[in-house]
Amino acid sequence: MAGNSFGTIFKLTTFGESHGEAIGGIIEGCPAGIQLDFDAIEIEMQRRKPGQSSIVTQRKEQDAVKFLSGIFEGKTMGTPIGFVIENKDQKPRDYSHIKDTYRPSHADYTYDKKYGIRDYRGGGRSSARETACRVAAGSIAKQLLKDIKITAYVSGVGNLQLDKPYADLDFSEIEKNPVRTADAEMAQQMEAYIGEIRKQGDTVGGIITCVIQNVPVGLGEPVFDKLHATLGKAMLSINAVKGFEFGSGFEGTHLKGSEHNDIFNEDGSTRTNYSGGVQGGISNGEDIYFKVAFKPVATIMQKQQTINSKGEKVDIQGKGRHDPCVVPRAVPIVEAMAALVLADFWLLNKLSKL
Amino acid sequence: MAGNSFGTIFKLTTFGESHGEAIGGIIEGCPAGIQLDFDAIEIEMQRRKPGQSSIVTQRKEQDAVKFLSGIFEGKTMGTPIGFVIENKDQKPRDYSHIKDTYRPSHADYTYDKKYGIRDYRGGGRSSARETACRVAAGSIAKQLLKDIKITAYVSGVGNLQLDKPYADLDFSEIEKNPVRTADAEMAQQMEAYIGEIRKQGDTVGGIITCVIQNVPVGLGEPVFDKLHATLGKAMLSINAVKGFEFGSGFEGTHLKGSEHNDIFNEDGSTRTNYSGGVQGGISNGEDIYFKVAFKPVATIMQKQQTINSKGEKVDIQGKGRHDPCVVPRAVPIVEAMAALVLADFWLLNKLSKL
Amino acid sequence: MAGNSFGTIFKLTTFGESHGEAIGGIIEGCPAGIQLDFDAIEIEMQRRKPGQSSIVTQRKEQDAVKFLSGIFEGKTMGTPIGFVIENKDQKPRDYSHIKDTYRPSHADYTYDKKYGIRDYRGGGRSSARETACRVAAGSIAKQLLKDIKITAYVSGVGNLQLDKPYADLDFSEIEKNPVRTADAEMAQQMEAYIGEIRKQGDTVGGIITCVIQNVPVGLGEPVFDKLHATLGKAMLSINAVKGFEFGSGFEGTHLKGSEHNDIFNEDGSTRTNYSGGVQGGISNGEDIYFKVAFKPVATIMQKQQTINSKGEKVDIQGKGRHDPCVVPRAVPIVEAMAALVLADFWLLNKLSKL
Amino acid sequence: MAGNSFGTIFKLTTFGESHGEAIGGIIEGCPAGIQLDFDAIEIEMQRRKPGQSSIVTQRKEQDAVKFLSGIFEGKTMGTPIGFVIENKDQKPRDYSHIKDTYRPSHADYTYDKKYGIRDYRGGGRSSARETACRVAAGSIAKQLLKDIKITAYVSGVGNLQLDKPYADLDFSEIEKNPVRTADAEMAQQMEAYIGEIRKQGDTVGGIITCVIQNVPVGLGEPVFDKLHATLGKAMLSINAVKGFEFGSGFEGTHLKGSEHNDIFNEDGSTRTNYSGGVQGGISNGEDIYFKVAFKPVATIMQKQQTINSKGEKVDIQGKGRHDPCVVPRAVPIVEAMAALVLADFWLLNKLSKL
Repeated sequence: MAGNSFGTIFKLTTFGESHGEAIGGIIEGCPAGIQLDFDAIEIEMQRRKPGQSSIVTQRKEQDAVKFLSGIFEGKTMGTPIGFVIENKDQKPRDYSHIKDTYRPSHADYTYDKKYGIRDYRGGGRSSARETACRVAAGSIAKQLLKDIKITAYVSGVGNLQLDKPYADLDFSEIEKNPVRTADAEMAQQMEAYIGEIRKQGDTVGGIITCVIQNVPVGLGEPVFDKLHATLGKAMLSINAVKGFEFGSGFEGTHLKGSEHNDIFNEDGSTRTNYSGGVQGGISNGEDIYFKVAFKPVATIMQKQQTINSKGEKVDIQGKGRHDPCVVPRAVPIVEAMAALVLADFWLLNKLSKL
Repeated sequence: MAGNSFGTIFKLTTFGESHGEAIGGIIEGCPAGIQLDFDAIEIEMQRRKPGQSSIVTQRKEQDAVKFLSGIFEGKTMGTPIGFVIENKDQKPRDYSHIKDTYRPSHADYTYDKKYGIRDYRGGGRSSARETACRVAAGSIAKQLLKDIKITAYVSGVGNLQLDKPYADLDFSEIEKNPVRTADAEMAQQMEAYIGEIRKQGDTVGGIITCVIQNVPVGLGEPVFDKLHATLGKAMLSINAVKGFEFGSGFEGTHLKGSEHNDIFNEDGSTRTNYSGGVQGGISNGEDIYFKVAFKPVATIMQKQQTINSKGEKVDIQGKGRHDPCVVPRAVPIVEAMAALVLADFWLLNKLSKL
Repeated sequence: MAGNSFGTIFKLTTFGESHGEAIGGIIEGCPAGIQLDFDAIEIEMQRRKPGQSSIVTQRKEQDAVKFLSGIFEGKTMGTPIGFVIENKDQKPRDYSHIKDTYRPSHADYTYDKKYGIRDYRGGGRSSARETACRVAAGSIAKQLLKDIKITAYVSGVGNLQLDKPYADLDFSEIEKNPVRTADAEMAQQMEAYIGEIRKQGDTVGGIITCVIQNVPVGLGEPVFDKLHATLGKAMLSINAVKGFEFGSGFEGTHLKGSEHNDIFNEDGSTRTNYSGGVQGGISNGEDIYFKVAFKPVATIMQKQQTINSKGEKVDIQGKGRHDPCVVPRAVPIVEAMAALVLADFWLLNKLSKL
Repeated sequence: MAGNSFGTIFKLTTFGESHGEAIGGIIEGCPAGIQLDFDAIEIEMQRRKPGQSSIVTQRKEQDAVKFLSGIFEGKTMGTPIGFVIENKDQKPRDYSHIKDTYRPSHADYTYDKKYGIRDYRGGGRSSARETACRVAAGSIAKQLLKDIKITAYVSGVGNLQLDKPYADLDFSEIEKNPVRTADAEMAQQMEAYIGEIRKQGDTVGGIITCVIQNVPVGLGEPVFDKLHATLGKAMLSINAVKGFEFGSGFEGTHLKGSEHNDIFNEDGSTRTNYSGGVQGGISNGEDIYFKVAFKPVATIMQKQQTINSKGEKVDIQGKGRHDPCVVPRAVPIVEAMAALVLADFWLLNKLSKL
């Protein structure tokens, strides 16, 4: 068994190692009759792909999605949508420096111990390259969801925090700056800081906030598949994520019930939204919002001590083209995973009552 | 569909409304041949049950687990373990005050909208009473895991935070105080504070930290069922949880890669443990540790404005016996969910390689 | 893992050994809002239960279903429906004669080898008593399906075959005779034959035919979960079943395509129905019909040679009250399993297209 | 949702329409460390592919499997094995004659009604071309199972029946004749008969028998996932299958228990094998054997009346290169599906007891 699938009805199953011939996936459960907008899919892929700005990795990957099935004359057929993303950038590189070496805070050691074998060429299955498949599938999920608006943005890079409530931000700023934050001034600070980190050969962590608007009441399948629990798993399954909180989150633990309860308006909406749009694991129609914590990328351009597979001490130094900060490129991944969760619950909810 | 199951191989499926005749569940995939310690199960149930101290709800529930199958002469048989927990405390109460009323920050509104019907007697399926089934199943999972030690404790109540690293704490303190924190002095402060909150007819949130020790390398099924992602979902599925972070968590986002990377010792262990015992979604043999945020309980003994099912404004005031702070009783639930996750991955990992 | 669940959305999970305190199950995915007819459930249970006529086992089991959750004021709530069937007939019997003995053509040997332990009191988990849970769940599925009519009847007992096409039979005869065949004269012959077999202390096999009428077009989820494939698995999972064929079945292998093809009428119906109501794994609106083969019950009242767990030869002779022919009581089980399959596909089909 | 997956741990998920760019699949749960024999895979693909003899379709499909992931330096890595089979034979053909026409006893009508759209080019998702993915995955399953020997052969073509018990046949004959029957003389008769049918522009049904030898005791997961029930579903999910029986099958219904019971030898083996190697849903170590019924192929080279999507009567006549009898090419598909079932249960059984 391996956890390569996500979702119950609208389900994505992925395959692929970072340096294999291709990665790809199968989307099951997408209803028939959706007229796909392939440009919209392409735009999402562009947002995630390397080399799009000076503050992300300079690797050149095309990340073109080739759909092989499930679509006929531009429309979904209800049958599984198979797709591949070929590795165009497969120049024969020298990986001898990491072949037997376990990079610190990478998955080299754990994969080797679990499976007794690993594809040492750049992370193999544990590489974040796999998330390209999530973005491809998520962009189709977004088209299914139509009226539901999913917006993610960078709200923290190192100690730089965009602390304003999301309602006070201008989301149209997000795609105007390479950091993908929702504030022009903060964008400049963050960009400068990431540039500095990069010159140091170092990396830095960050936070992404995601807001989901126009959500119908009723999404989520308690008790175990609560909406926020499934969103949490979706986010925590993204490479480098260390934490997830929604609504009042960790801050909410300091509050009293009398402060935290969301009082109803007569139309069923609530005056405050500490609940983050979810009550009892089911969407209540208010905005869903949550934060996702990303650790600093483990590959740094500095010399580090580590061990090889024989348990001998060796030195290692990152080569090639890596991200100094992962959050700008993770924004479309967070949105894609949110879309997968919502699409699945949106379909399931059609079966809740007669 | 409804999300009533947790796990792939070692799988718990639960049923039950808070005021029905019984709640219960089925545990599938527990291997045959485990000599069960029923006293150990009973102890876990006692830790979760209401009425155990002055700072938790004074409801009297026996929460006796009755096993109906899967066990023969004290040993698991490999067949599904069915169990029920009967509601002994079913005195006919008056629920007319909430029958048509949606309690603020409860699941009344969302259940009613999703299903068009709800059991208004005390929360129905959304009640935390359901977690008794998790504790019953988790206590069996713990017995399967034997050498793996799972310890949770309260590390925050309102603004009172137990900030010391877990390694500096004395876990033997936890069960000595009603708050279940791992420090005698902090226990007194927290207990006093919860008592005060209770007198106010109010409630307060809190944080639970969980530490898992003696974990074998190799647990977790990337890419979607990463160990920490599944732990996160497990915790977020517990009533009132608003956030989850593991290892360096949200704090880790402030660090640089050069600070955050866990450098290997020659035996494969690491000098630091920012990774929280998980790398690439797979356990690396170091301690797993994580924090879980709980919001303040929504039922307060103060008058609040709300609406009824007709959308009319009405007043509501909590009656009966509710927890002023949920975290003391949530400690065994956190441990139980962690045990379910680990038991499942422990079994799955036996199939990773030939 | 153990295969205790059936269905994807409308899903039944069962537990229980034949001589434990109770058997039972959980029905997930039943939509909210169904006003249940409990008398109808009771009638189905009566059809399956032992002791109903002179040609079935004379064991006295009440088989009363106690619903514990998921139903409020007579209506389904969308939450899981937990139920138990208690064993009232638990008189302390002597099982020493089979404790270490493997009964021929029973599951004693295989369970013991697979799990290293077995509940030797009457078959344990492998007992057909478990099918009572299927009938309980199936009777709810039938109520969900409303307009779809599922009718099973005995079409073979030993060499006695009811060979007429089902369209020429009078289904109102079925419940008028203890054999549950659809022909009054054949009923007498079969009843007499089963009585004779019983006097010999022997048992005999039989065939059940099932017809499903008024099926909407579109049920079934190819390619692996074809409607007939899932029906086949459902039937083959019933104790003692050795074969399944639908539509033209094994006879159809002798035909030519020019004879076998079902030519369309202008309204989409077909002139013939060799397809058995299923084309490409999806219902086409015609009647679904299939046959299920049951082997003779393994427990006979004659002395047989067998082995014990040490591999020593021992003699064994059936005691107690067993069915000389299983098919009369299996009729409601076949219907129940068919109902579970259709209910699941009926719900899934709501998600096929936008 | 769509039923595109088969298996619980060793799991195949497929995609693809017959005339799309490629079909393919993902194999999950294959343990790491298997040194793959790619020639063996190729041989299985050759056995299934069109154009291999004069009695099968003359279409030229290469059916070359391209593995994209999960394999490194010839060994499985434990990660998902993605693969594609490209359609080389994509010459632009004229499908206007079937675009709006529903071919009799095909899936055109049901797919169109279920999804509201279909790929009319040659059957789309309902085409048997999809079974190439099953053979590819099954050939890997066979390599995992090593010592278990799976042998299928044609035992019926129209009225020509190979009635000898399998133990009296010479399996080495099977691949020596284009019919894939296990008897040289019968092979000639069957070949001649199929040739004749082909000249008539007609098709004919047939039967495949499969024998599985050297099976360990303990495979199968009762109660719903009994070994024979899952084998039955596997077979019934193959295109054109109408029936499945194992062990004594439908014939066994005529027997008495005293005749049918398999008496044990002292080593746990049985003198007879009416059980077909399965008792209580679990393998008992004896040979597993079963029969699969295939209807005649629906596409015939004769004029037939049918309807179009407007419900108008139209004539249709098969064009191109179709199989007059499907069973010779279905032999490797039956074996592949059997291998998938056994591989999954073989892995699951490792978790049955401590």
